[in-house]
Amino acid sequence: MTLIERARTGLAVPEVEQVARTEGVSTETVLNGLINGTIVIPANPLHVGLVPVGVGKGLRTKVNANLGTSSDSCDVQGELRKLRIAIDCGADAVMDLSTGGDISAIRRELIAACSVTFGTVPVYQAGIDAIERRGAIVNMTADDMFAAVEAHARDGVDFMTIHCGVTQESIEQLRTQGRLTNVVSRGGAFLTGWILHNERENPFFEQYDRLLDLARTYDFALSLGDGLRPGCIADASDRAQFQELILLGGLVQRARDAGVQVFVEGPGHVPMDQIVANVQMQKTLCQGAPFYVLGPLVTDIGAGYDHITGAIGGAIAAAAGADFLCYVTPSEHLSLPDENDVRDGVIASRIAAHAADIVKGVPGAFEWDRKMSRARKALDWNAQAEYALVPEMARRGHLKTPTSDEACSMCGKYCAMAVVDRYLGTVAAES
Amino acid sequence: MTLIERARTGLAVPEVEQVARTEGVSTETVLNGLINGTIVIPANPLHVGLVPVGVGKGLRTKVNANLGTSSDSCDVQGELRKLRIAIDCGADAVMDLSTGGDISAIRRELIAACSVTFGTVPVYQAGIDAIERRGAIVNMTADDMFAAVEAHARDGVDFMTIHCGVTQESIEQLRTQGRLTNVVSRGGAFLTGWILHNERENPFFEQYDRLLDLARTYDFALSLGDGLRPGCIADASDRAQFQELILLGGLVQRARDAGVQVFVEGPGHVPMDQIVANVQMQKTLCQGAPFYVLGPLVTDIGAGYDHITGAIGGAIAAAAGADFLCYVTPSEHLSLPDENDVRDGVIASRIAAHAADIVKGVPGAFEWDRKMSRARKALDWNAQAEYALVPEMARRGHLKTPTSDEACSMCGKYCAMAVVDRYLGTVAAES
Repeated sequence: MTLIERARTGLAVPEVEQVARTEGVSTETVLNGLINGTIVIPANPLHVGLVPVGVGKGLRTKVNANLGTSSDSCDVQGELRKLRIAIDCGADAVMDLSTGGDISAIRRELIAACSVTFGTVPVYQAGIDAIERRGAIVNMTADDMFAAVEAHARDGVDFMTIHCGVTQESIEQLRTQGRLTNVVSRGGAFLTGWILHNERENPFFEQYDRLLDLARTYDFALSLGDGLRPGCIADASDRAQFQELILLGGLVQRARDAGVQVFVEGPGHVPMDQIVANVQMQKTLCQGAPFYVLGPLVTDIGAGYDHITGAIGGAIAAAAGADFLCYVTPSEHLSLPDENDVRDGVIASRIAAHAADIVKGVPGAFEWDRKMSRARKALDWNAQAEYALVPEMARRGHLKTPTSDEACSMCGKYCAMAVVDRYLGTVAAES
Repeated sequence: MTLIERARTGLAVPEVEQVARTEGVSTETVLNGLINGTIVIPANPLHVGLVPVGVGKGLRTKVNANLGTSSDSCDVQGELRKLRIAIDCGADAVMDLSTGGDISAIRRELIAACSVTFGTVPVYQAGIDAIERRGAIVNMTADDMFAAVEAHARDGVDFMTIHCGVTQESIEQLRTQGRLTNVVSRGGAFLTGWILHNERENPFFEQYDRLLDLARTYDFALSLGDGLRPGCIADASDRAQFQELILLGGLVQRARDAGVQVFVEGPGHVPMDQIVANVQMQKTLCQGAPFYVLGPLVTDIGAGYDHITGAIGGAIAAAAGADFLCYVTPSEHLSLPDENDVRDGVIASRIAAHAADIVKGVPGAFEWDRKMSRARKALDWNAQAEYALVPEMARRGHLKTPTSDEACSMCGKYCAMAVVDRYLGTVAAES
């Protein structure tokens, strides 16, 4: 039985206990969320050493870091170092998006070293193998695609992005409306090319039950990919995007009926004033399934600083109900991220997630800020570092310019906190 | 006559033409905004070499960078270098917040080198001089305070932050409600200490007409400071903050009546779900006066990364109608910013401002993104660098990992844009 089936039939689910404990919520909250599909706990039984986390309603907003080689850059040791950095910086999940080198071997090495939730996009490997074996991505067969899914499942992948909603129908919407940047999802592009070339339906859509069988057998979670997500502000919230989302809504229901955990991926490039609507539409169309957003990026021009562009969009999305933020690194749109990029990306996304958790009322989120601010008021620099999201950077930042005072070098002896405390400190009680 | 009086009486105002040209809006838009107070153009006639910008409704969201020495760190050449970096990175204004060394000499050196709008907080100098001359900040006299304002005006300062709303009444609200971090504005702290120690009203409030006379005489703009802004999420939107804002609303009207340009400063630390309300309340209580926000920071725990925390809040505030973003640097709460901090702070705020400008419908904002995305679709790396907010970083980022392909090293030969274009490129027209 799958994890969700065990929960539904009242069997013990240690993963639920684990998540409830970590989150500081009741077991019942997690169990109910799991049963009605608003919470997922991706946990492939073959992923040895996984510490499972929950993603969804009422839980802390989670952060994913993308890793992986490309045809231009294939350094397995480097990817392992990035994995370590991502976990150290607090990523709740990583995805291996490798498209270069021995993809299977790299995946296995990464999973073996990975204690957090591990995701992949099997169609990358199916498409790339098809080039070698059959001469082109578009020559990949349905069997190739499902074989890749099964191979990833066997290796212990906890969740897989499958672009089931890239169909002849949704591509037709794209074609008739037109777009500035067409398809920017790599998996979406493979499947769009395949569908157009072969003039056939997407096997992941047409044979969705076959996918559900694999997901049930190996008990991995489905992350329904948004292959037609907008790749620029101008393309946001168009017919193709929402046609795909409508299809995914139907597939969410079928996954739940089959006892398969499922969540949904979302954009992408979205202007600020469309983000809340995007989250609300996903939540309604997909019946409360957890929403995993890629950014969203609130402008197209931030190249080199897209971790910040993504943090703005991610915070707004998460505050509106998105549950899972895929990081964006400063190298997005420019190159494969290096180790510093991974660090910056995870931290920016965690700031966005936490800012949202404060207003979502996630247990403990607001109290964390109160602790920090009490330390700040007391000019207690050790405690401030302790409560900072990244203690090492807070410590290093404070020591950057030496201060002769108990305050910091910004205000030195004219620190507002210190000045006012002389007159008001004992009067105004802490609220 | 002041700039606003010239506009009101129908005289030629070259500054209005200049702003209209730069912004790509009609002269009438700027003129009307100036006359009814929704736009300000801070431009002290004594600021030689100033290229004036407009701040307010219908115009591009502006960004300010704080500079200045402290008692711990006083390197004038360093501040001049930061000024240059801020301007090069696109800051529309800088504020000299110096509290260390020869404050007057530093200010004059900075103004002489400054082509953008220049602001100060004269009460810092008045307070610090009072320590030397009278033994304590609280011994500063009303004459000292106004003398500092006049000295700054004579040096060509374009706008001054004056904390007129820190009064016995607003402090009483703070005292009775209580706060976690009391007063975190340095100027607000000086005045709070002064009011409590002397048991007298804030001279900037009590003798507001005297301040208006100086502003009219020298034609600088008033930036009504929010001395009681919240210093942590827990203190946001409390009685003290809004009591001060109500008082500032009345002072906005009196400034306009006196022919003085005026805008209003706002928080601070604000949870995401209170930012829009904060902007709307400022706009109503202050009758549409431009809003200059300090962040806002959406969590207290981002020390070392508060440029990101501030970009999230700044983008939300600006999208809701805030007109002017004061940057926050990675060193906020930790130390005086260094040159890298100034760069990171300005860029993060500019991303926030631009993301908001897209949804505010600021002329040209959306089109900038379209140009970038057209370049991205064409895999034209020179054009992408040209349209990036920071071309140098986009160029450097792309070259970080070499690519053998026309795409970037993220996807290498499996670039989604390239894959799909083979099948869809000629079909889907640009929307």
